[in-house]
Amino acid sequence: MFYHDGKLQYSVRVDTPNPVFARMLQQAIGGQEGEIRVAMQYLFQAWNARGPKKYRDMLLETGTEELAHIEMLATAVALNLEGAPPALQEQAAKENPLVAAVLGGMDPRHYLSGGLGALPADANGVPFTGAWVVSSGNLAADMYANVMAEATGRALATRLYEFTDDPGMKDMLAFLIARDTMHQQQWLAVLEELGGHTGALPIPNSFPQAQENGEVNYAFLSTHIDGPQTEGRWTQGASLDGKGQFSQRRAEPQGGEPQLAPPVPQVHAQLEQGADNPKKGEVLR
Amino acid sequence: MFYHDGKLQYSVRVDTPNPVFARMLQQAIGGQEGEIRVAMQYLFQAWNARGPKKYRDMLLETGTEELAHIEMLATAVALNLEGAPPALQEQAAKENPLVAAVLGGMDPRHYLSGGLGALPADANGVPFTGAWVVSSGNLAADMYANVMAEATGRALATRLYEFTDDPGMKDMLAFLIARDTMHQQQWLAVLEELGGHTGALPIPNSFPQAQENGEVNYAFLSTHIDGPQTEGRWTQGASLDGKGQFSQRRAEPQGGEPQLAPPVPQVHAQLEQGADNPKKGEVLR
Amino acid sequence: MFYHDGKLQYSVRVDTPNPVFARMLQQAIGGQEGEIRVAMQYLFQAWNARGPKKYRDMLLETGTEELAHIEMLATAVALNLEGAPPALQEQAAKENPLVAAVLGGMDPRHYLSGGLGALPADANGVPFTGAWVVSSGNLAADMYANVMAEATGRALATRLYEFTDDPGMKDMLAFLIARDTMHQQQWLAVLEELGGHTGALPIPNSFPQAQENGEVNYAFLSTHIDGPQTEGRWTQGASLDGKGQFSQRRAEPQGGEPQLAPPVPQVHAQLEQGADNPKKGEVLR
Amino acid sequence: MFYHDGKLQYSVRVDTPNPVFARMLQQAIGGQEGEIRVAMQYLFQAWNARGPKKYRDMLLETGTEELAHIEMLATAVALNLEGAPPALQEQAAKENPLVAAVLGGMDPRHYLSGGLGALPADANGVPFTGAWVVSSGNLAADMYANVMAEATGRALATRLYEFTDDPGMKDMLAFLIARDTMHQQQWLAVLEELGGHTGALPIPNSFPQAQENGEVNYAFLSTHIDGPQTEGRWTQGASLDGKGQFSQRRAEPQGGEPQLAPPVPQVHAQLEQGADNPKKGEVLR
Amino acid sequence: MFYHDGKLQYSVRVDTPNPVFARMLQQAIGGQEGEIRVAMQYLFQAWNARGPKKYRDMLLETGTEELAHIEMLATAVALNLEGAPPALQEQAAKENPLVAAVLGGMDPRHYLSGGLGALPADANGVPFTGAWVVSSGNLAADMYANVMAEATGRALATRLYEFTDDPGMKDMLAFLIARDTMHQQQWLAVLEELGGHTGALPIPNSFPQAQENGEVNYAFLSTHIDGPQTEGRWTQGASLDGKGQFSQRRAEPQGGEPQLAPPVPQVHAQLEQGADNPKKGEVLR
Amino acid sequence: MFYHDGKLQYSVRVDTPNPVFARMLQQAIGGQEGEIRVAMQYLFQAWNARGPKKYRDMLLETGTEELAHIEMLATAVALNLEGAPPALQEQAAKENPLVAAVLGGMDPRHYLSGGLGALPADANGVPFTGAWVVSSGNLAADMYANVMAEATGRALATRLYEFTDDPGMKDMLAFLIARDTMHQQQWLAVLEELGGHTGALPIPNSFPQAQENGEVNYAFLSTHIDGPQTEGRWTQGASLDGKGQFSQRRAEPQGGEPQLAPPVPQVHAQLEQGADNPKKGEVLR
Repeated sequence: MFYHDGKLQYSVRVDTPNPVFARMLQQAIGGQEGEIRVAMQYLFQAWNARGPKKYRDMLLETGTEELAHIEMLATAVALNLEGAPPALQEQAAKENPLVAAVLGGMDPRHYLSGGLGALPADANGVPFTGAWVVSSGNLAADMYANVMAEATGRALATRLYEFTDDPGMKDMLAFLIARDTMHQQQWLAVLEELGGHTGALPIPNSFPQAQENGEVNYAFLSTHIDGPQTEGRWTQGASLDGKGQFSQRRAEPQGGEPQLAPPVPQVHAQLEQGADNPKKGEVLR
Repeated sequence: MFYHDGKLQYSVRVDTPNPVFARMLQQAIGGQEGEIRVAMQYLFQAWNARGPKKYRDMLLETGTEELAHIEMLATAVALNLEGAPPALQEQAAKENPLVAAVLGGMDPRHYLSGGLGALPADANGVPFTGAWVVSSGNLAADMYANVMAEATGRALATRLYEFTDDPGMKDMLAFLIARDTMHQQQWLAVLEELGGHTGALPIPNSFPQAQENGEVNYAFLSTHIDGPQTEGRWTQGASLDGKGQFSQRRAEPQGGEPQLAPPVPQVHAQLEQGADNPKKGEVLR
Repeated sequence: MFYHDGKLQYSVRVDTPNPVFARMLQQAIGGQEGEIRVAMQYLFQAWNARGPKKYRDMLLETGTEELAHIEMLATAVALNLEGAPPALQEQAAKENPLVAAVLGGMDPRHYLSGGLGALPADANGVPFTGAWVVSSGNLAADMYANVMAEATGRALATRLYEFTDDPGMKDMLAFLIARDTMHQQQWLAVLEELGGHTGALPIPNSFPQAQENGEVNYAFLSTHIDGPQTEGRWTQGASLDGKGQFSQRRAEPQGGEPQLAPPVPQVHAQLEQGADNPKKGEVLR
Repeated sequence: MFYHDGKLQYSVRVDTPNPVFARMLQQAIGGQEGEIRVAMQYLFQAWNARGPKKYRDMLLETGTEELAHIEMLATAVALNLEGAPPALQEQAAKENPLVAAVLGGMDPRHYLSGGLGALPADANGVPFTGAWVVSSGNLAADMYANVMAEATGRALATRLYEFTDDPGMKDMLAFLIARDTMHQQQWLAVLEELGGHTGALPIPNSFPQAQENGEVNYAFLSTHIDGPQTEGRWTQGASLDGKGQFSQRRAEPQGGEPQLAPPVPQVHAQLEQGADNPKKGEVLR
Repeated sequence: MFYHDGKLQYSVRVDTPNPVFARMLQQAIGGQEGEIRVAMQYLFQAWNARGPKKYRDMLLETGTEELAHIEMLATAVALNLEGAPPALQEQAAKENPLVAAVLGGMDPRHYLSGGLGALPADANGVPFTGAWVVSSGNLAADMYANVMAEATGRALATRLYEFTDDPGMKDMLAFLIARDTMHQQQWLAVLEELGGHTGALPIPNSFPQAQENGEVNYAFLSTHIDGPQTEGRWTQGASLDGKGQFSQRRAEPQGGEPQLAPPVPQVHAQLEQGADNPKKGEVLR
Repeated sequence: MFYHDGKLQYSVRVDTPNPVFARMLQQAIGGQEGEIRVAMQYLFQAWNARGPKKYRDMLLETGTEELAHIEMLATAVALNLEGAPPALQEQAAKENPLVAAVLGGMDPRHYLSGGLGALPADANGVPFTGAWVVSSGNLAADMYANVMAEATGRALATRLYEFTDDPGMKDMLAFLIARDTMHQQQWLAVLEELGGHTGALPIPNSFPQAQENGEVNYAFLSTHIDGPQTEGRWTQGASLDGKGQFSQRRAEPQGGEPQLAPPVPQVHAQLEQGADNPKKGEVLR
């Protein structure tokens, strides 16, 4: 169960409202790298957690924190939009191209749909989708999904930081960047607890490796028409999980050309596709 | 540039066609954990690659291999559907509820839209979306996105393996599971080359940590109403990147309640929302 | 800012796990009528609230409560899925059509993607979308959006109640149905505070009605080829806002046929579409 | 069955074409608050109507009228785009930033995909989705969905009205705003016929209230960590449906912490998640 | 402007309601091959039509007819669902696996969201999307889009026809199949008026072919690693537009390996990706 | 199986980077008319091909070529974005509205999500969707889908050609336009092999026309309230397939008004919708 206090986790101050920056911030709310995604991802992982209770507990903690981050960013959007409407009005009146520049850079739905408020969408107005949320039932897979989310999330936040000169916004982003630093650490620390590379890999570690194809499970296959061209840690030496030796070879077809049966009548392919069709020979002549 | 030879990377054999399994396989084609996603993800990462050429080259290799995996799975779907149409016909004729059971389990669009062929969609017929593809411009973030994709992908493949008793399908999946093992290794090997935890973290490692909020970048914040309840690797000791010490504390609001300006007239809020509106006092009485 | 305690708002008990019902419950999690939608809708309305603070405060309260409802339903899904895996295994082994019936009725992604856990998606596995969330900046419009959400939400919950005989599930749903009753009341109570029909309508009430077309703002227009066929409260008497008289009339075109300019060259229409094209006359001959 | 006459319901005149306004108008065509949504919503409600025939008839009338509104707005988009292409050409030639301003504000797909014509998408080019359409089978729920659609629709139209100074566009919007006024009235008039608050609530009114949880169906629950902070019409007095008394109380967990079973083997969680796993104790140490 | 008469274009009779067939019919309503798509496609093409008025007029005619087809199919869905609820009830009571079979085959949202009515979605419950609608501004391109829609639409209708034994449904589908026959003809007849292959191709025919690359505009390029393997009408002889000669050759790279600049600092790539980064050499060693 | 060589099919040169043009190019990558769509469409058609092997082979060839086109365009996007970041920086520093104009025209996610790289999305940042891909199992329907894709694709490419003055970009587009010319030819050549209009129509040609409604399969039906207004090739003369005579007539309802049964109790409609409800008469008074 959840509670609130109506206050912000960290202060959100906008010195110079900027509708273009409001649009950019939407990526951190409703984009793939955004806070709705991580909040829902950590909470669903918690609610679905089977196994050691401590991980369920921790996921609830951080999922709940992310709700506060959505709140901070939505507030930042609303504050950045407070400078927008006069521009809108002036543009309508004078068709001033400089004002149009702001219009081009802002999300029109911030005005039209949101009445100068935030939306659960990305920087292009594409709505948040639950399709991004990963809750796989495998704890290690989930942890890597979380590291990825915090890595792309921190990259996004640093880009937003570069984009603005507003001191209030920079201060808020410095807080969010720091939290992303910690969250990257946190999920990797779970992976360390789960045994690190040698213990957790390959994920899932509960599938007997004897059942996977032992010819290709530690081989880098090159599809280059001239065969292998590069070398790296992944082409030689012991594998990271300590369970194999890396090798490298040319990818080659081990299967022939597929043969599908002719279409059955109920599918209503063209007559020429049928096995025993009188028109068929004619066509292939 | 790309080439083909019309053969399969590994043999695809279906001993007993099963339209329900055809539907399950769709998750591995067009689902979030599927092969279209990784093919596009690795190829876009290659095409957008800035920095050491060897990583671009490697991404092209594996992205191209994944195209062959889509091909294998699409072939497997088509072969598993070859048993479907007689059932369809019989059902239409007799309204046999046992046959309806198969219908319930199969994807109706396999027949209606695909003419008994594969679709670029998941096990529920939800179309593949480019929104899943991660190509962030940051090599380490991309590598974690790739590990996640291969971890959830291998989990999916092992579940499909459990679900079928068809020897041909088990053999094909054993091959794909093995490739996922290697691909997990491969992306983690790049991370090792990039310096491992101490070198690559926090991602991006090019943002000066002096600019992030130093109070909270290695602190686990607890939102539990009774404060911290759990301990783990992430609450104590040196951080994994060697750049801080983990700590744990109660999350507390550092910002007050947000104050948004009243709506501007052009937004056409209700009168009662306006700062100087005659109806306002009345309402709040 | 948000807090949690790890407990459920109301007890969630499943006496007989039913994977088919788990799928049905997804509609109440990630469907248009579901709890993610209302949680996000009320929270975004709160965060974007301009005007009387009391409404922001109330929206935060109920938005936070809805998070606990998602949690209850996700738990219910996970518990209902606990009976699923043996069935899966048996099916793979024996291709028993009765077991296939369960498979047909369950969401395959509950097993394949979720590892027998809940997903942020609807009963067909279609992901939750932020496109449903309404936060318009107009308080009265938002309240009607909320009433609608709770009306369709309560209808959904009563249908789920009819669908199950599990006492635990019926008890949980009786709780959720009751909360929907209150929430319908709550948003309508705000509308009453905002002046009810005569005060709040038309929405937005801040647009001067003198600027709207006075000929048709209280007229029911009939598009039936034989003209008006029906009568109702909306065809006669004073309008509900007390600002007009209902009337009824045949809809008739007040505009002529539209005339668009011929395509400009840069658009590369077909030559025959061009105003001065030599081929044009030929074609229309 | 449907008919047409090729004329517009109301005249559509554009004095000064404005590609930026063309983009804004798209929100009223293919956005959540737009005309495709209401046309489809009213028509599906009519086609699915069970119960008194008069409501089916009325829904068909207004659904058909909305088709004419899509037509008007699509025409308005096409006319506003007639000024676009020379600008496009000039920009390509000179990279004039003022022209780029127009480009930034216009939807590039108006030129690239539509050849300077309207699209079934919103102001950000996000395609119309059938996911918005509500046809619940419950007449009262549908009516509130319709009121909401017309309330947000009229808010949108007034914002478009403020945005433009084009007399033709203002005249067209004054017509559409007036129709939204009537349509809000119309759906509320049905609710009045259905008994108003005391007759129609709670929706659905066919579910016996004795079966809902009688403890919480008229109680405002506060999730604020300091308990109830606000008062309103919804915290005291008789409920609007006359079937209860409003009260207010602190939200408290009535359920304990959820306990999910450990994962079954077929799901292939990590070994550490298993109930009887040798590695488990080690991890939790 | 549009009108209606409340009657069906053709009679819709369901002798034996079948909820599974109701789901199948959804593909013809809200699927890619369905009637909402063609209705919107033809109407948007009409509204955006620039050039000869006769084509705009014809598109309006057929777009309006398609609205009546959606109406027929929505009615067919509602009638097929009339047998569903007793089954639902019985299942809840007895957990009868035969009844579950029907449940597996039906769309749960038909009951949960639609109250046993049609939805604007496909056979898997995936909502209709405006992304399918083609209105390109080029008349010939639009006509091919229309032929494609009617070809896949008729294939779908024949598959539905095979699937059902209900005489009423077969009769309705025989009508719709016939209309698709005519509509295929109709759009191809426009292409004939536009000059057929020699006049209309390549589309757009208004782009001067002298500006396209003359080396490859009539050459079949083979990407097979062993070079061209097949022959057909497209590898030899005069091209269909009479403007070239078909040839066949091996596809070969005419461009080298792409070279992208190193990342700029603001993007915050990893340090190792930077041109002048001290860590770079180390990594590539 | 697939191979690569890391080189581009044709040279991609950008003389003057233009972030606005980078956004435009996205339509040709991830838009409905774009290269991901055709690559996936041709490959899925190949993988699902039943019938003459030569068509499977050819589809593989051209599907593989399209992969190289995605690669070319992604490279072009990355090169066009190389001019972007200084502008971003300058804007942040000076809030220069001219620079904002560029920002308005560029896709913010090119910077925020892609780190100045291409995305699998369209010119508005809407992600690529597998819902566009047509692989129907009917060869002729597929060929028309392919012609349509190449017709709208070539229209898009010519519009991009008009939009840019960059010699490198014009050269690349001239290549792609030429390939679209060939591909239009290619699919039409298959249709010629399949018998052209008289042999392939109506599609599917395997459904016995005796089973379709013979009254309306060659009749143009006019929904204009004043009856037929236009004439064309489609209203008179022999049909294109030689199997009928075109005619024209007024569309008239052949079905009556639909009658749906009252709602069953489990659906929980409003009481007033019920057949035997005591409140019903009251309402309809």
